[in-house]
Amino acid sequence: MRRAVALAARGLGRTRPNPVVGCVVLAPDGRTVGEGLHRRAGGPHAEVEALTAAGGLARGGTAVVTLEPCDHTGRTGPCSRALLAAGIARVVYAVADPTAAAAGGAATLRAAGVEVAAGLLAAEAENVNHAWLTAVRRGRPAVTWKYGATLDGRVAAADGSSRWITSAESRAEVHRLRHEADAVLVGSGTLRADDPHLAVRGVPDAVQPLRVAVDTEAAVVRPGARVLDDAAPTLVAVAADLPADRTAALAGADVVRLPRAATGRGLDPAALLAELHRREVRSVLLEGGPTLAGAWLAAGAVDRVVGYLAPALLGAGAPLLNDAGVDTVSAALRLEITDVARVGPDLRVTAVPRPAGVPTTEGS
Amino acid sequence: MRRAVALAARGLGRTRPNPVVGCVVLAPDGRTVGEGLHRRAGGPHAEVEALTAAGGLARGGTAVVTLEPCDHTGRTGPCSRALLAAGIARVVYAVADPTAAAAGGAATLRAAGVEVAAGLLAAEAENVNHAWLTAVRRGRPAVTWKYGATLDGRVAAADGSSRWITSAESRAEVHRLRHEADAVLVGSGTLRADDPHLAVRGVPDAVQPLRVAVDTEAAVVRPGARVLDDAAPTLVAVAADLPADRTAALAGADVVRLPRAATGRGLDPAALLAELHRREVRSVLLEGGPTLAGAWLAAGAVDRVVGYLAPALLGAGAPLLNDAGVDTVSAALRLEITDVARVGPDLRVTAVPRPAGVPTTEGS
Repeated sequence: MRRAVALAARGLGRTRPNPVVGCVVLAPDGRTVGEGLHRRAGGPHAEVEALTAAGGLARGGTAVVTLEPCDHTGRTGPCSRALLAAGIARVVYAVADPTAAAAGGAATLRAAGVEVAAGLLAAEAENVNHAWLTAVRRGRPAVTWKYGATLDGRVAAADGSSRWITSAESRAEVHRLRHEADAVLVGSGTLRADDPHLAVRGVPDAVQPLRVAVDTEAAVVRPGARVLDDAAPTLVAVAADLPADRTAALAGADVVRLPRAATGRGLDPAALLAELHRREVRSVLLEGGPTLAGAWLAAGAVDRVVGYLAPALLGAGAPLLNDAGVDTVSAALRLEITDVARVGPDLRVTAVPRPAGVPTTEGS
Repeated sequence: MRRAVALAARGLGRTRPNPVVGCVVLAPDGRTVGEGLHRRAGGPHAEVEALTAAGGLARGGTAVVTLEPCDHTGRTGPCSRALLAAGIARVVYAVADPTAAAAGGAATLRAAGVEVAAGLLAAEAENVNHAWLTAVRRGRPAVTWKYGATLDGRVAAADGSSRWITSAESRAEVHRLRHEADAVLVGSGTLRADDPHLAVRGVPDAVQPLRVAVDTEAAVVRPGARVLDDAAPTLVAVAADLPADRTAALAGADVVRLPRAATGRGLDPAALLAELHRREVRSVLLEGGPTLAGAWLAAGAVDRVVGYLAPALLGAGAPLLNDAGVDTVSAALRLEITDVARVGPDLRVTAVPRPAGVPTTEGS
């Protein structure tokens, strides 16, 4: 299964709007006779790719797959049927398929006499499919907020300079995060300060994400902005109530008009996420600055936080987060750290919001 | 040697102004026949304790010791002579003694025909004696700045609340840091906001550190302040130029008058450290708030940073560091992370200032 998870990971960023899936087929004697992954939506599922590689050696063997085999005919036929046709005797999968349309593969296989086991390395397999599973469960794209800051929580110095706070190694990793996301999103603060490009560089065969520029007042993105070049598709999101002439300069761009947030600050994250979901985006990398991040966190629209902490101190300059709707410690947005890693000289901290109702550690 | 380092660590916080030292004596056949550590200044050195335990079994054996055996007569006799008297044939030590008075033990032993080897597990042995070695090399106490903050670098919420940002586990560890330090130091901001106690709680047989209250204008510490109770000794540091009546209320306390910093903000860190060094303090735990930490960092008076990062976000409130004399990214105070550990739900990050002249990672 560890191998199957590694195969699945190769598909990250390429399968939109589908999950990533990896599959290993073992002959009856335990030898690996086929491997496969889901490489792109519309392409063969991982099971089919692995069965094809295995050929007749699959008969009587075992299929190890990261996600419950599908039971429906979408752009391709049901994997449950393909496994039966190949004569597979045993299926081991990690995570159940949570979608109404595709679920039921395990039941179909069992009914046909195949031995089925679930849950092996479920945590690892959940993790590789974090974005897709979150999107299915929440009915909207999964959102990862990424930031790079000093150890004292600054994203810029007093004079506004920010290049470079984090290391080259961390910045290279961010291109990998962009590649793995279906969309990369920034707000007007970052658009104004950095004129960012947001495309993926340095990742072989990268799939470019949709670049989403949230320019609520249509006041920042202008023809010639780097985010509007042809390196990747771009969506500019503006407030629905703006007069038509405010977006006239963006005539050539893909512009969507959306409701403002109830707080009055920026666009409604839920409306923007619904629009992106409609466009088959299942994962969003939020690279916005402190204000956008604050609004999205306050709206409960962040599912994962990835922070790159440079071992540096500034003592002044913009903080990494502003105005998240919290005014006292007991109301702090509490997270749970799921991973810590050294990236060059920096530290990468990954965390997820703590489920509501779980008390924080108190006492002494 | 690993065992000797562990023995040395047991002395942390207890040996002021001496180093911590651990020693293991092996019989000629390699069996451990004696263990010892330096438990307190004036008490037996680690070698003597281990040799006493070994008795006649030490003859022809090996002494493994974390620090080069001393060669001088201080409050106790030279360890080099004790090792020779016990008939030790071989001495393995980790770190050379950097003091002019005590060094030379290795040469004395070699001259007497003992086989001497140095450098085994030197990094671990350096680490356990970090404070003492730093104090010897710098001629002033070693300073560790400790802070506890949210992942977004806040030490308080917008309403000023700060209890509790970090976990009970992290707060318990801070008591261990206090115990291991000879002095614990805070500034007037923290004194005013928290009326802190600063004594060690929850560490068995703890040695209480000297509590140092930096109250430059003699405007905050008043009779009844928790820092003035009898749980531990306390030094109140005020500006030398204050009129005498400003400290009249502190008549019963140990008050020292010191020059102000050249920057005009607070006291001169070097003058305060010299005063503490005179009082045999070799390690200082800086628990000051953002302003004191900024001044000490700007003055180059911090040798180690220990940050407790709670996985929480506030988006407003006091930052962990203010005004460190940095206004642009290229002038950031760059550190090197030496250790990362999970402490309950929190993350503990230990870092040291990067040596001058080492370029930061640049490029891309």
